[in-house]
Amino acid sequence: MDKIEHIGIAVSNLQSARNIYEKLLDTTVYKIEDVLTEGVKTAFLQSGPNKIELLEATSPDSPIAKFIAKKGEGVHHIAFAVDDIEAEMDRLKAAGFILLNDKPKPGADNKMVCFIHPKSCNGVLVELCQEMK
Amino acid sequence: MDKIEHIGIAVSNLQSARNIYEKLLDTTVYKIEDVLTEGVKTAFLQSGPNKIELLEATSPDSPIAKFIAKKGEGVHHIAFAVDDIEAEMDRLKAAGFILLNDKPKPGADNKMVCFIHPKSCNGVLVELCQEMK
Repeated sequence: MDKIEHIGIAVSNLQSARNIYEKLLDTTVYKIEDVLTEGVKTAFLQSGPNKIELLEATSPDSPIAKFIAKKGEGVHHIAFAVDDIEAEMDRLKAAGFILLNDKPKPGADNKMVCFIHPKSCNGVLVELCQEMK
Repeated sequence: MDKIEHIGIAVSNLQSARNIYEKLLDTTVYKIEDVLTEGVKTAFLQSGPNKIELLEATSPDSPIAKFIAKKGEGVHHIAFAVDDIEAEMDRLKAAGFILLNDKPKPGADNKMVCFIHPKSCNGVLVELCQEMK
């Protein structure tokens, strides 16, 4: 694990949240991206070596819509950057962590990703992400 | 805001959470610290330029005990590193953010800190922290 790549924050309204986080971080959103497979629209802000990913659901079936219905807006996941996602998945699986996907899958921001079940990490949804080459 | 300084995770049992996060991040806790004023015991792990702070309540009145009673274990706050905490507090107050303390107060890990109300940040409890000189 090289660093916190980003923190994903579930929000009800991307435009409003974008205004808030641009003021908070004193910067501007550098990328807006639809992730069709996850039913989300995302906005990314940079904070030094790290990013904040704001996530708005684009369909009621989206994991983000379900998360907000259950818990309200807030931190949805923490993503750690890894160099070799398959090796990390093997290492963590062997250590007893429950992975939510068997193989890396495409995520936002040009990444291959894998999620770890919150039950394995004290209630935190953890994402591993590797830059696509 | 220079970077994500740390993510604070509320846990029921520090020893058990420590074992999990040491495996997850493939590293060891570098500091255990009691923050008497907050009623918490903390453990810190490094992830590149960032840290994970595990927080266990040491009294039933602790904000961490109340958080876990209400929401269960999980991400409690996100802390951003700042160079001049008073200047950032002034800037954010002027921008309409609700600060939870009027003046910087001592936090864990040799920091002066200030919290921003989750209502101001889409449900996220945000901490500003400046290294003590």
